[in-house]
Amino acid sequence: MNILYTDDTICAIATAQGGAIGTIRVSGKEAICITDKIFTPMNGTPLSERKPYTLTFGNISNGGEIVDEVLVSLFRAPHSYTGEDSTEISCHGSSYILQQVMQLLIMNGCRAARPGEFTQRAFMNGKMDLSQAEAVADLIASTSAATHRMAMSQMRGGFSRELSALREKLLHLTSLMELELDFSDHEELEFADRSELEAISCQIENVISHLVDTFSVGNAIKNGIPVAIIGETNAGKSTLLNALLNEERAIVSDIHGTTRDVIEDTMNIDGVMFRFIDTAGIRETSDAIESIGIERSFQKLDQASIVLWVIDITEAKAQIETLKDKVIPRCEGKKLILVMNKCDISANSDELVQDNTFLSDINGSETISISAKDRKGVAELQELLVKTAALPEVSQSDVVVSNVRHYEALTHALEAIHRVQNGMSLGLSGDLVSQDLRECLFHLAEIVGGEITNDEVLGNIFKNFCIGK
Amino acid sequence: MNILYTDDTICAIATAQGGAIGTIRVSGKEAICITDKIFTPMNGTPLSERKPYTLTFGNISNGGEIVDEVLVSLFRAPHSYTGEDSTEISCHGSSYILQQVMQLLIMNGCRAARPGEFTQRAFMNGKMDLSQAEAVADLIASTSAATHRMAMSQMRGGFSRELSALREKLLHLTSLMELELDFSDHEELEFADRSELEAISCQIENVISHLVDTFSVGNAIKNGIPVAIIGETNAGKSTLLNALLNEERAIVSDIHGTTRDVIEDTMNIDGVMFRFIDTAGIRETSDAIESIGIERSFQKLDQASIVLWVIDITEAKAQIETLKDKVIPRCEGKKLILVMNKCDISANSDELVQDNTFLSDINGSETISISAKDRKGVAELQELLVKTAALPEVSQSDVVVSNVRHYEALTHALEAIHRVQNGMSLGLSGDLVSQDLRECLFHLAEIVGGEITNDEVLGNIFKNFCIGK
Repeated sequence: MNILYTDDTICAIATAQGGAIGTIRVSGKEAICITDKIFTPMNGTPLSERKPYTLTFGNISNGGEIVDEVLVSLFRAPHSYTGEDSTEISCHGSSYILQQVMQLLIMNGCRAARPGEFTQRAFMNGKMDLSQAEAVADLIASTSAATHRMAMSQMRGGFSRELSALREKLLHLTSLMELELDFSDHEELEFADRSELEAISCQIENVISHLVDTFSVGNAIKNGIPVAIIGETNAGKSTLLNALLNEERAIVSDIHGTTRDVIEDTMNIDGVMFRFIDTAGIRETSDAIESIGIERSFQKLDQASIVLWVIDITEAKAQIETLKDKVIPRCEGKKLILVMNKCDISANSDELVQDNTFLSDINGSETISISAKDRKGVAELQELLVKTAALPEVSQSDVVVSNVRHYEALTHALEAIHRVQNGMSLGLSGDLVSQDLRECLFHLAEIVGGEITNDEVLGNIFKNFCIGK
Repeated sequence: MNILYTDDTICAIATAQGGAIGTIRVSGKEAICITDKIFTPMNGTPLSERKPYTLTFGNISNGGEIVDEVLVSLFRAPHSYTGEDSTEISCHGSSYILQQVMQLLIMNGCRAARPGEFTQRAFMNGKMDLSQAEAVADLIASTSAATHRMAMSQMRGGFSRELSALREKLLHLTSLMELELDFSDHEELEFADRSELEAISCQIENVISHLVDTFSVGNAIKNGIPVAIIGETNAGKSTLLNALLNEERAIVSDIHGTTRDVIEDTMNIDGVMFRFIDTAGIRETSDAIESIGIERSFQKLDQASIVLWVIDITEAKAQIETLKDKVIPRCEGKKLILVMNKCDISANSDELVQDNTFLSDINGSETISISAKDRKGVAELQELLVKTAALPEVSQSDVVVSNVRHYEALTHALEAIHRVQNGMSLGLSGDLVSQDLRECLFHLAEIVGGEITNDEVLGNIFKNFCIGK
């Protein structure tokens, strides 16, 4: 059992401050008995004698003084969120009252819960696996249909159920193979069926590669599709960004980075989240320091999956040259949209737009003519962005990895299983193959949980939860 | 029945945004049936077949898609907060999920509740009287032991139970008296026992006068004791205010008024709330406009129950003259504290403090010597403030009026009952006395509710509630 796991009784305010109702959760061996100490039921029957899944009305009192009239929900192990005996005290939403009730619970033997500790206990008690536990936090943070669907799918078992079953089989075969090592005097002895091992390795490889592939979609849904806006100083990048954002001002938010120049705006267009990466203007310069700034702008291209190159139509020829020289070589694997700006002051935009044969080298490149100033063509550009993003519709039955930690664990597990497969085909000895098997098992356990999951991993996962969850 | 009262089914998010758990309340005839439409219980038994005061685990679904795994609490009329059939849906605290559930409820026939509508229905259905309903809002807003005690006492019936009983008796006698008017041909006829009417009038007068007297305490607890800081321009008023507030920086809050110069700071000292009213400096001037500003400062004295007059000890003689001339005549009924400031740069403070015979005219006046700059004596001044405030300890069994609306209604009821008493002693005719009786009944109904309570009163009371309560 894990040292993070203690069987004392915990309590926490589970609702945000400021509502009409506030709820305090209590969970652990003594949950019902401690709640009974501070609670006077209106019908006279203490919680300890009430049936689970019932509500009891009464008073929380501090000595002779009534703190609040409350409703208490009762749950008994294992049929509760945590799998332990639990109560939920529903009070009037005054932070004074909630604090008083917390104090009373603590005075009577509860401990204030750490962030995520209820969900951690649910995991420890086998109510959910690790990836399901993490989905609880994602679900609470979900702000759109797509993020909600991913979290719900993951919370309901999504990919972890299959992984967990495969991991169990692999664990069994690994143990058998390690048993062979103890009998290494008898060379012919093979407890672990090699063809079965090969079959399962292959199955695991298939499942994991598919999951790893879904991450780009999952990450784009969760964190937004990164779009770099790049162009020369006078091309109208800022005007374009404002025009794009103003279309949907209500759902614009600022993500402030650590440095002033990494301010990103996210925007939801037709249900797809975009993360706009603004960059410094690019121009030919012999100034060394300015060159560094420009180089930094180009580096931001690396984060982007879509690049908007903004061109001032009145200086199109020169700016397209820069594009060819400096941008196109760095756009491999990205989608490029050429935005011919200022079409309000130049009539020859259409003809320029036609003359884009140099773009034929780049997959998925598009050209559009707009006037950011007059907001002409901005809606069309937004449509084009959604089309270019080409994010598949995710349903609740789809399995999508959106968690960076899962992605990394899966990638490592995939590398390990590839080494296992190579090792077996090369006829490597059991002890070498077993090392890679153990590594694969370890990384799978990081996702589904398991006997190898360590305190540090758990600590890192649950510290990001909110209190009361 | 009141036109504000409708019997449709209402729903509202009752928790604040941002917690681990979010709760949606549903109340009305169709509450259980509508919840059943969007809820799939895990155990298969629909809510309509479950017992009240039970919890049911299951899914809220939108077509085939699961919105959330939730716990539903079930209540049946009249044993619910509102007195109607009700459910409470406890979801994960994602605002996306809560909005989705609200949408589903509304699509299935619910209406989004107005602020306070649940409590209003509780009042309409006889679960509580008006003053109890108002106490619910006060309870949620309570931030200290004292405000909590007042609200709890009021919510549990406090003064309204007694008032309500007295009002019933008075109503009965008034009706009998009005019946006499219908038989005015028979002059001797007296249905209403005059001595009984006198006795009840006297009882009502006693109860109401006592309640009216408690308002100064109730209001001080609820809104803070108003303290005006006044003094000449260079006396150190701002430094003193900052020194006072810095002592307890954590619980300082700004109440922004409608004009820039009405910024009030409230501070809790030893459990007593003070509301500091800063004023412009006072000085002799022939400038007409400046005189107006100074007059405005003096006007703020009227709001204060404690006046801190700050004197620069190095100019004490002149400043005390101003005090005698301008302040003392306006301090009737207030407590004055003379704050001899800058004791760090003048040694003769103690001697000046002794020479305060001119203060003997003012009840409860005190003198203290401090250095606001060095924060010397500031703690002593805070102690002196608490002592001067002399706020009695309020217990949950004390009946205290803290609501301005109640205070006004009680004051009007008291005036009316005085007119009734005068009228009876003067032997006025029944129809004249009856008018005053009706007025008294009307104002009592404004507190406890009753058949005369009108829509406007109710609308004004409940519009200040939060949504979901």
